[in-house]
Amino acid sequence: MPLFDLSLDQLHEYRPDRAEPGDFRSFWDTTLAEARSHPLDLTLTEHDLHLPLVEAQDLSFNGFGGQRVRGWLLRPRGLAGDLPAVVHYLGYGQGRGEPLDWLAWPAAGFATIVMDTRGQGARGGTAGATGDQAGSDSPHVEGFLTRGVLDPHDYYYRRVFTDAVRAVEVAHALDGVDRSRIAVHGSSQGGAISLAAAALADGVAAAMVDVPFLSHVARAIEVTDTRPYAELLGFVRTHRDRVAQALATISYFDGMTLAAHAHVPALFSVALMDPICPPSTVFAAYNHYAGPKEIDVFPYNEHEGGGTHQSARQVRWLRERFA
Amino acid sequence: MPLFDLSLDQLHEYRPDRAEPGDFRSFWDTTLAEARSHPLDLTLTEHDLHLPLVEAQDLSFNGFGGQRVRGWLLRPRGLAGDLPAVVHYLGYGQGRGEPLDWLAWPAAGFATIVMDTRGQGARGGTAGATGDQAGSDSPHVEGFLTRGVLDPHDYYYRRVFTDAVRAVEVAHALDGVDRSRIAVHGSSQGGAISLAAAALADGVAAAMVDVPFLSHVARAIEVTDTRPYAELLGFVRTHRDRVAQALATISYFDGMTLAAHAHVPALFSVALMDPICPPSTVFAAYNHYAGPKEIDVFPYNEHEGGGTHQSARQVRWLRERFA
Amino acid sequence: MPLFDLSLDQLHEYRPDRAEPGDFRSFWDTTLAEARSHPLDLTLTEHDLHLPLVEAQDLSFNGFGGQRVRGWLLRPRGLAGDLPAVVHYLGYGQGRGEPLDWLAWPAAGFATIVMDTRGQGARGGTAGATGDQAGSDSPHVEGFLTRGVLDPHDYYYRRVFTDAVRAVEVAHALDGVDRSRIAVHGSSQGGAISLAAAALADGVAAAMVDVPFLSHVARAIEVTDTRPYAELLGFVRTHRDRVAQALATISYFDGMTLAAHAHVPALFSVALMDPICPPSTVFAAYNHYAGPKEIDVFPYNEHEGGGTHQSARQVRWLRERFA
Amino acid sequence: MPLFDLSLDQLHEYRPDRAEPGDFRSFWDTTLAEARSHPLDLTLTEHDLHLPLVEAQDLSFNGFGGQRVRGWLLRPRGLAGDLPAVVHYLGYGQGRGEPLDWLAWPAAGFATIVMDTRGQGARGGTAGATGDQAGSDSPHVEGFLTRGVLDPHDYYYRRVFTDAVRAVEVAHALDGVDRSRIAVHGSSQGGAISLAAAALADGVAAAMVDVPFLSHVARAIEVTDTRPYAELLGFVRTHRDRVAQALATISYFDGMTLAAHAHVPALFSVALMDPICPPSTVFAAYNHYAGPKEIDVFPYNEHEGGGTHQSARQVRWLRERFA
Amino acid sequence: MPLFDLSLDQLHEYRPDRAEPGDFRSFWDTTLAEARSHPLDLTLTEHDLHLPLVEAQDLSFNGFGGQRVRGWLLRPRGLAGDLPAVVHYLGYGQGRGEPLDWLAWPAAGFATIVMDTRGQGARGGTAGATGDQAGSDSPHVEGFLTRGVLDPHDYYYRRVFTDAVRAVEVAHALDGVDRSRIAVHGSSQGGAISLAAAALADGVAAAMVDVPFLSHVARAIEVTDTRPYAELLGFVRTHRDRVAQALATISYFDGMTLAAHAHVPALFSVALMDPICPPSTVFAAYNHYAGPKEIDVFPYNEHEGGGTHQSARQVRWLRERFA
Amino acid sequence: MPLFDLSLDQLHEYRPDRAEPGDFRSFWDTTLAEARSHPLDLTLTEHDLHLPLVEAQDLSFNGFGGQRVRGWLLRPRGLAGDLPAVVHYLGYGQGRGEPLDWLAWPAAGFATIVMDTRGQGARGGTAGATGDQAGSDSPHVEGFLTRGVLDPHDYYYRRVFTDAVRAVEVAHALDGVDRSRIAVHGSSQGGAISLAAAALADGVAAAMVDVPFLSHVARAIEVTDTRPYAELLGFVRTHRDRVAQALATISYFDGMTLAAHAHVPALFSVALMDPICPPSTVFAAYNHYAGPKEIDVFPYNEHEGGGTHQSARQVRWLRERFA
Repeated sequence: MPLFDLSLDQLHEYRPDRAEPGDFRSFWDTTLAEARSHPLDLTLTEHDLHLPLVEAQDLSFNGFGGQRVRGWLLRPRGLAGDLPAVVHYLGYGQGRGEPLDWLAWPAAGFATIVMDTRGQGARGGTAGATGDQAGSDSPHVEGFLTRGVLDPHDYYYRRVFTDAVRAVEVAHALDGVDRSRIAVHGSSQGGAISLAAAALADGVAAAMVDVPFLSHVARAIEVTDTRPYAELLGFVRTHRDRVAQALATISYFDGMTLAAHAHVPALFSVALMDPICPPSTVFAAYNHYAGPKEIDVFPYNEHEGGGTHQSARQVRWLRERFA
Repeated sequence: MPLFDLSLDQLHEYRPDRAEPGDFRSFWDTTLAEARSHPLDLTLTEHDLHLPLVEAQDLSFNGFGGQRVRGWLLRPRGLAGDLPAVVHYLGYGQGRGEPLDWLAWPAAGFATIVMDTRGQGARGGTAGATGDQAGSDSPHVEGFLTRGVLDPHDYYYRRVFTDAVRAVEVAHALDGVDRSRIAVHGSSQGGAISLAAAALADGVAAAMVDVPFLSHVARAIEVTDTRPYAELLGFVRTHRDRVAQALATISYFDGMTLAAHAHVPALFSVALMDPICPPSTVFAAYNHYAGPKEIDVFPYNEHEGGGTHQSARQVRWLRERFA
Repeated sequence: MPLFDLSLDQLHEYRPDRAEPGDFRSFWDTTLAEARSHPLDLTLTEHDLHLPLVEAQDLSFNGFGGQRVRGWLLRPRGLAGDLPAVVHYLGYGQGRGEPLDWLAWPAAGFATIVMDTRGQGARGGTAGATGDQAGSDSPHVEGFLTRGVLDPHDYYYRRVFTDAVRAVEVAHALDGVDRSRIAVHGSSQGGAISLAAAALADGVAAAMVDVPFLSHVARAIEVTDTRPYAELLGFVRTHRDRVAQALATISYFDGMTLAAHAHVPALFSVALMDPICPPSTVFAAYNHYAGPKEIDVFPYNEHEGGGTHQSARQVRWLRERFA
Repeated sequence: MPLFDLSLDQLHEYRPDRAEPGDFRSFWDTTLAEARSHPLDLTLTEHDLHLPLVEAQDLSFNGFGGQRVRGWLLRPRGLAGDLPAVVHYLGYGQGRGEPLDWLAWPAAGFATIVMDTRGQGARGGTAGATGDQAGSDSPHVEGFLTRGVLDPHDYYYRRVFTDAVRAVEVAHALDGVDRSRIAVHGSSQGGAISLAAAALADGVAAAMVDVPFLSHVARAIEVTDTRPYAELLGFVRTHRDRVAQALATISYFDGMTLAAHAHVPALFSVALMDPICPPSTVFAAYNHYAGPKEIDVFPYNEHEGGGTHQSARQVRWLRERFA
Repeated sequence: MPLFDLSLDQLHEYRPDRAEPGDFRSFWDTTLAEARSHPLDLTLTEHDLHLPLVEAQDLSFNGFGGQRVRGWLLRPRGLAGDLPAVVHYLGYGQGRGEPLDWLAWPAAGFATIVMDTRGQGARGGTAGATGDQAGSDSPHVEGFLTRGVLDPHDYYYRRVFTDAVRAVEVAHALDGVDRSRIAVHGSSQGGAISLAAAALADGVAAAMVDVPFLSHVARAIEVTDTRPYAELLGFVRTHRDRVAQALATISYFDGMTLAAHAHVPALFSVALMDPICPPSTVFAAYNHYAGPKEIDVFPYNEHEGGGTHQSARQVRWLRERFA
Repeated sequence: MPLFDLSLDQLHEYRPDRAEPGDFRSFWDTTLAEARSHPLDLTLTEHDLHLPLVEAQDLSFNGFGGQRVRGWLLRPRGLAGDLPAVVHYLGYGQGRGEPLDWLAWPAAGFATIVMDTRGQGARGGTAGATGDQAGSDSPHVEGFLTRGVLDPHDYYYRRVFTDAVRAVEVAHALDGVDRSRIAVHGSSQGGAISLAAAALADGVAAAMVDVPFLSHVARAIEVTDTRPYAELLGFVRTHRDRVAQALATISYFDGMTLAAHAHVPALFSVALMDPICPPSTVFAAYNHYAGPKEIDVFPYNEHEGGGTHQSARQVRWLRERFA
């Protein structure tokens, strides 16, 4: 895909109206309070990796609605003192996979939580272990983006973002973790969830947000027709009289609005030829972001963004920040 | 797609082992009894079509788990006496759409129920109105085929087939319907649901099953990689150690087994170049079908099968049968 | 396909030069006079549909050059008085198919003529019954758009539009039809033909024009390369020195020009992501339309436009207008 | 496309039933007699190529129905005595293009006729100059393969093959041509036409038939779904009750049958991975061919077959044969 | 591909900065001097074509690094006096193929050299005979565009352009050639090489440059993602920190810069819908071209540009020029 | 891709003729001796990863022709005693990327060498650092598979396999490595290189070969047309008279033959729906493999094979074997 969105100069200035709902804050306060009415009920089960350097535990806790959410906890062996931690959120369709998929942060000395995205993790080779025990009141396109999209209380990402906040609480509840040094990280859908955690959870000290999904959604469906945004496009093409209702639901979850409520230091990345998460939708979130921030721009890349190149950069950035 | 499956001669003889679970009958007896513990609670609301010939009602009833299922009831105007009825089930992804989408059976003099497939109906232009209020305990591929596929009690089609049986009960509960002349009909996923209704519901007098999906699934994922079977292929590619478990779940829902439990007269159709529902999987059901049966073979067609050509044939077939 | 054409604001103002040939009116007067030199010679043959609500007749008449054109006549049963009528024209490649394909207008109380597009109707499942008995003097790309494109007298759509005018005359010639309430309707190619009939036929009382093809063609081949416009693109790519000649031919058939000659009330529809009939080409016709007019805009849809959703709207619109 | 058809050993033995119509010979005798009732009326117009080595003339003559068929006549300059000649027929969609496209045979010392295929030549860069002045009585798929396919008298290739025979008569009518050394040549559709000319024309001394189309058509539509065979597939998918009628029409034009009526020395070529003209359909013609014959097999090629490599071989083969 | 680049008006004015390296001239002087340190060592071997009008010789000479480069020499037979000559360069991936592929210039009376592009000629049916005996110091994407792209001395096209200059020297060294009438010609990659030869070789009298590749490369990778430019896009997506280095290398080979150093009369062609060599990149070279110039614009064509239509035009243009 | 190759039962018995060249052993002995005439000249440069658990060094050594080959050396920190080692070879097109890409073996306690594949590593996000300093004498398709394919001495994989043997020698030369516990590992092209190292290098104690490429190549190009085998298909389609020569070259490098010369314990994996490296070509190598062996079969997977699932299995397998 060649360049198809705004120019880099325009992107740096691009700050569209957020369409933030008046009750945004109370919606989330109520949602999280309800979730916290269930005990976190963290369980950790040894998972033998046969790795001398890293130990793994199968982790589960109560997320939204008191429903169980699974994940991994990986810890570097042999490091002294309380460890800093990273909570890692996953891309669309991915599951927690194998511990071997997530060795970078433990190798860098971080206790690492990898959180399943409920219901996801059944393709692409990375198996999930968490169902979405809640149904939805309205029909939806195959996929997760339009589940319950006609009502913010019924919307799928209300459950996922709540799970994400609780996963930060899990990090705080772990032995051997330094609670002042907990970061969140993710790419694409994982970037969206990271933004949500940075905005909604307490005790997050840094956020790394790569090519985030679910940001400036009303524009996204006008400039791209790739999956997963195409799911929403499919919905509004079929439910022609429910477009405003669907977009109103999403406004509680849009990265632009969440960004405006996040205050921790953040490192974003964006790719200027990204047809999955178009750069204008990423900059829309970045330019609204309320905390200290940097963004790495990859001018020729598509949705792969900075790849492992960016991972190495993030290790350096986070270690400096947490030094 | 050129010919890719067995020859027509082989197809007529093809009768693979059904792998029917020992508790198949009791599984369904228990499932349906549970559903019937909820009252049917049928509601009908006038829907003004502005059509002098056909009247429509927005229909809803309690399906699986007592959850509301929506649909349409269409009736021809001006015909005397109790009407025969057709319960129509939908293809994958479709919703009940507009009453205008379903005029053939009413024009042919049948009271017509169009049942939403829970959760579906958000793309392809035919909007549904029914959510799937139940979640699933395990992760799944985008789509519906692998929802809850690790446990037959949790499986999506347990809910759908139960809804389908209850939709037949709705037909029996309607005023002005001749209960001895109730037929079921559907194509693709709708064909699978029709087979299920023919096998599991009481008071079905005829079944029309076009290019049915969800039949001989273990073979389907070896001979085709098109959607929706590709969803299951995605699952077994990722959950490499859960293949047997997934196939065991599906064996409670496989068209081959359901066919062996159905005894009403049936008219099938099949297309020999169908890459979505390969002909060997259709004949696997047809050859196991336990009632009087005919099959119309379209040697050059793909999944469109007989199209409206077959609809005209079905009108004649059913009117003769119900004369 | 994401948004790729003018913005909605620009579309409402878009009124390009029509390039109307000086002899446009006389070209058509002569053409129609020649056609009328042949008797209409309408024949109707009973076609047993087995439908208690609708009766069908196989219809044929003399179109351009006195050549036979086939179609269906469908009539609702049991309605008193002279009926209003709709003449329905088909999309590219479609044939008249089965009467079951066209039940909406009869169910709405309209005598309905479905006219074959000569030569078309051999794919897509809707069989035609009408050949194009005229050849063309020049080579053409596979398809119909470039047949005879080097001379307006030889051009394929000269024959089709003439057939369309004669089909309106058929409606006037039918028993039991109220000649003051005859409408034309079609989508895509059918929309183009409807525009032509509204402009060129006498006794049309309303026009419904969905996502029309063959409008502002000179722009169409610059902004889209999808079929059928791609046929013309193929032609001008090969006959590099005949571009002006081909566009001059088409100017006698362009929807913009026809629109400027039509005066009956019209209901248009357009889809802003339509890659087949781009929105600027539709608005070019709409903004030139000379009669009372409305347009329904579908902001996210592609060429499916409003689908059955729009059909329901059209039934209401036309019944109000003909009440 | 990997290997998908019979093995080479099987191909050499493959000799399916020809399904030759009983009146095959009389059908063609009558057809050609009718054509010959029109004078050939050959015209040649100088076309200045600015080439010192080759001179070109724009050629036209009366083909089927006395309709004008265009082409090129190219002659090498400066060679003494009567020249041998090649009549060259074109691939599907091609037109006669520019004289520069056809320099190989003139450079090899042959007077060369390139015959337009009526109606074709509007894409792919090689412009034709010949319309198909005859229409067809039945609808057809976009393209030429199904024009008039419901009746052999109305079928498009009846006209084309008749034109081809007349083009051989043109070669005989030319000054400076040695009538005992006239060959026919073509690839794909041109191969089919060459076979027809070899079978039906008088005074052909050799035939070169590359990867011929329109042979063993009943099998072709079962083993490939590529264009142009896909046009017929589209037709039989739509006109489900006209399959036998369409295949009966084509049996008068099938390369297998024509091959059995051809007796001049022939050089065929075939490519084993050809998805356009599958090798079994080519060998079906070759194995039925009634004259002296050779076939060059390209085991890894697709429809490009032997390309210019084969052209060089044909120059050697034909020069030896005509030495 | 519809129009996607600048408008024709804009194109005529488009003259971007060339980013010409300061040592451009000395880079090439040194490069060519080094090449000329090897004797040309021309060899010609008879190749029997069996063509009375054209004779062919298998040609080889020392190109860059004294490495052997192969090609064809074709000569018209029977023309008196010294002949004008054309050196023809090939498109990406092509090899010299068969002499039969290159008959137009000989038929037009020109001695014709067809030069292999080292390493290329192994697909697309036109076999090459020349390896690239030099390796590269850096990794590269499959293909030729990024070979050695991190250093101008190591870059693949340094070798190719040097070969091209030496091929002009071959033309000068041939018996029977009029050294004052030597032209260069090529399309796409061949157009790029022609530009290079026009700029860098002595004794070129005219250049024909069709839809040239490798021009204004920095823009090309922003407006198209088709091959071969996609190879460079792949490189900069992976070697994210080497973008400037890669573009700096290419600046020694960019058509814009070469054009500014060429002074002989030139005939360009460009196609406005060309997705392979976008029109703005072609006009960038054309508008910088320093000699007398014309450009033929094909408004609807893609990369095929003017095809044989343009070949006929070039024959006329060059014969007039060399008359 | 559905199942397209032999059945699993057939695969277990599939043992085609190897077509081993008579001088296979001496060809490789001579090749390796020549390489060893250059000193290994290993250099290691610290590369600061900022990872407390793993240290990395930028590694280079003299491979084929004494040319420098780059790679990474990763070592787990804090483990006592000499470490076992893995030499890891890369898939087609990949480069050594970032150390973060290769953490599994170090985390499992192995010194790990990742060897660049010369010339590769410029797309797909994993950058290489090694050029292929040798050219080839013959033209080739874009890519690496056909470089020098007309002569085994000139063939690209002669250089790569030699580099691979030298990389094993590097492992033996490292401090802190237990020379009795050195394994080789790779997937796809990396699997082919691993097989070569197992067959040709001294001092390999175990081999892990995932879905290997370059095995039973003569069959591969008949059953698949995907990249990279498609490169060879492109070559033989163009160089129609060089097929035997190309296949004779490859016989020195074919996995089947190499397998017959390897004697160390091996763990293979294969995927039955793999269109890149078809299962029959993998089993051809496995069934000829001369040492103790196991194979993991993934019945539904494509070329991703066992993915990280298999990595976890390999860690266990190798640790047991090296315990």
